[in-house]
Amino acid sequence: MPQRVTMATVARRAGVSPMTVSNVLKGKQSVSPELRSRVEAAVAETGYRFNATARTLRSGRSGVIGLLAPGSTSPFSYYGMLGGLIAQEARRHGLTLAMESPEPGREAEIGAIERARAMSYDGMIVTPLAMGPEDGPLLPQDFPVVVLGERPAPHGTAHISLPNHAGAFDATTHLLERGARRIALVSGRPGPEENVLTRRADGYREALAAWGPEAGAPVLIEVQELGPQAGREAVRAALAQGRRPDAYLGITDSVALGVMRGLADEGLRVPEDALAMGFDGIPEGEFSIPSLSTIRPDHAWIARRAVDLLLERMGSDAPAQLGGLELTAPHTVLPRESTGR
Amino acid sequence: MPQRVTMATVARRAGVSPMTVSNVLKGKQSVSPELRSRVEAAVAETGYRFNATARTLRSGRSGVIGLLAPGSTSPFSYYGMLGGLIAQEARRHGLTLAMESPEPGREAEIGAIERARAMSYDGMIVTPLAMGPEDGPLLPQDFPVVVLGERPAPHGTAHISLPNHAGAFDATTHLLERGARRIALVSGRPGPEENVLTRRADGYREALAAWGPEAGAPVLIEVQELGPQAGREAVRAALAQGRRPDAYLGITDSVALGVMRGLADEGLRVPEDALAMGFDGIPEGEFSIPSLSTIRPDHAWIARRAVDLLLERMGSDAPAQLGGLELTAPHTVLPRESTGR
Repeated sequence: MPQRVTMATVARRAGVSPMTVSNVLKGKQSVSPELRSRVEAAVAETGYRFNATARTLRSGRSGVIGLLAPGSTSPFSYYGMLGGLIAQEARRHGLTLAMESPEPGREAEIGAIERARAMSYDGMIVTPLAMGPEDGPLLPQDFPVVVLGERPAPHGTAHISLPNHAGAFDATTHLLERGARRIALVSGRPGPEENVLTRRADGYREALAAWGPEAGAPVLIEVQELGPQAGREAVRAALAQGRRPDAYLGITDSVALGVMRGLADEGLRVPEDALAMGFDGIPEGEFSIPSLSTIRPDHAWIARRAVDLLLERMGSDAPAQLGGLELTAPHTVLPRESTGR
Repeated sequence: MPQRVTMATVARRAGVSPMTVSNVLKGKQSVSPELRSRVEAAVAETGYRFNATARTLRSGRSGVIGLLAPGSTSPFSYYGMLGGLIAQEARRHGLTLAMESPEPGREAEIGAIERARAMSYDGMIVTPLAMGPEDGPLLPQDFPVVVLGERPAPHGTAHISLPNHAGAFDATTHLLERGARRIALVSGRPGPEENVLTRRADGYREALAAWGPEAGAPVLIEVQELGPQAGREAVRAALAQGRRPDAYLGITDSVALGVMRGLADEGLRVPEDALAMGFDGIPEGEFSIPSLSTIRPDHAWIARRAVDLLLERMGSDAPAQLGGLELTAPHTVLPRESTGR
C-alpha cells in the first residue's frame, strides 16, 4: 500500500511549513506568489488531496444528506427555495445537502431512497409525489427518512405537512374581506385521493360557506399542471368563455403568477380589474408587478424541523422504530399589491 | 450470508406471479386490492427492496453524477433552470443528477469534488465561483470533471462558458436599435480578475463605442450582489440621485427583474418610461409583467454538451489526460415587452 500523502509530506517536499501549505490550499492572499507556486508544484508531484471528509467517513458517516424533490428545478419553484433553506440548515450541522429531482412514480421515488442508502448518504428528506401510506414497508427500515409535503406520508415516518386547509381558508377569507364576491379557484382537477389539491379546495369551499350566501358559489378554473404557463392558459380560456371572476386564488404562487400574466395578456390589470392571490410564499412573488399576496408557511421552521428530525433518526440504530409523527407548519397571510394593499 | 430476496421470493410467498409483484411495485392500477395487499404483506415479511441500482453498482458505476452549483436555489435561479435540463439529459443516459450548492470558497469547492469522488459519484459538473486556473493540479486526476460557467476554468479541464462578451454586445445593440441613448449597465463592481462581470461589461462598452458618439458614455449602476433585491435597491438609489437612464441592461435576468420592480416602486413603467433588458433567458422572464427581453444562451446545448463531455471522461481511465477544451455556447437575442416589442 503506498504511503499516505499528508499535508506534512507536501510541506517537506516544498520546503515550507504545513501552515503555509494550508494557507495556500485555503486560497489565503498572504502567501507570496513564489511560495504559492512551490507549494502547488509539490501538491501536483505528491498527488496530495484535500481530505476534509476523511474524518467524517471514518466515523461511519458520509456527511451528506439527500433531498428528494420532484420539480425542484422548475421556474418559481417552491422546492428550490425550500432546498436552499434546508441546505443552509444542514450546513449549520456540518452536513452537505444533495438535491435530486427524480422522475415521477412510486418506483422511481423508492428506488432513489434505496440508491441514497447504497451511496452512503446519512439520511434523506423526501417530498413524494407518488409514494403513499401503503409504501412504508417498502422503505429501508434501517435508513433515516423524513417526509415533507402534501400527500399522506408512508406509515411510520416523520411527516411535516403544509397548512393546506387552514391556509386556503385564510386566503379565501382575505379575498372576501377585500370585497371579492366571485372568487375562482385556479387548480388541478381533484382526484379521488386526499392530497394538496383536495385539502386546499376544501379550505376554499369552507371559507365561502362560512362567509354566507353573498360569497358566491365555488368555481373551479382548471389547470393542466401546477406551473405558470398552465395558469396563464387557464385564465385566458376562462375569459374567452365569458367567465369573469372578480378574484383568482391560485393553488400555488406559481399558478397565481401565471394567472396575473394571463390577465395582462388580455389587457386586464391586477388589482384594478380583479384580485389575485397565491399560496406558498416563494420569493418571486415579492418582485412581481404587482407583488403577489399569498399564504406563507414558515419555511425556516420547516427546514429546521426537517433537519432536526433527520438528525434524531440518524442517531438511532433503528430509525423506523422512532415511529410516525405528524407536524403541520404554521403560516401567515401576506397581503401585497395583488389584493390591493 | 442470508439468501438474497428477489422478486421471485416475494411472488412465491404471496402466491402470485412475479409480474403481479412487479405491477404492484410499479403502482399499476390493474391489480386488485386483494392481490395488492397480499403482495405488500409478502414484501414486508421478506424485507424485499427495490434494487434498480444493484446492476449499476456491480458495473463499478453508481449511476449518480453531481452538479456543483453555488446559489442554485436562489430566486430566479439560472442554475436551478440549468440543473433541470442537465438532470433531464442525465436521465436520457440512465444517470441520476445530485445537485449541491456549496458555500463559496476554493476549499469548499475543491472539497466538494473530493467528497463526490469518495461518495462514488461517477463524475461531476462544476460551476465554480472561486476555483480558478491555478487549481487544476488540486483536482483529483482520476475523477471526471466538466466545468461550466463564467470564470476561467482550472487548467486541463473541459470548460463550457457562456457567450458573455458577444451576448452583452448584442444586448446593448438591441437597446440602441430600440432608440435608447443613455443605457446604464446594472452590475457588480468589476474586480481585477477576468470574470462574467468584466466580460459582459466589455461587450457593453464595445457596443456603445461601435455605435458611435450618440450612443452615450458607459454608466455603471452598481449592485451589491447579483439578485433581484440588489437590482431593485440600486435603481431606486440611482433615481434618488437624479440619474435617469432611458434603458437598463441588467447583468443577469435576476438583476433586471429587480430593476423593473424598483422602477415600479417609483411609479415608472417599462417600456414606456425606460427600456429594460436582462441576460440569461431564465423562464421567469417570460411571465413577468412586462415580459423581459434578454440574451438567451442555448441552455439545452449546454446541458447536452456537459453530459456528453462528462460521459467521455467517465469512459476514460485517466480523465484529466483528455486535456483542456474550451467551448462557448451559442445565443440568441430574445426581444419581449420590456424593450417595446
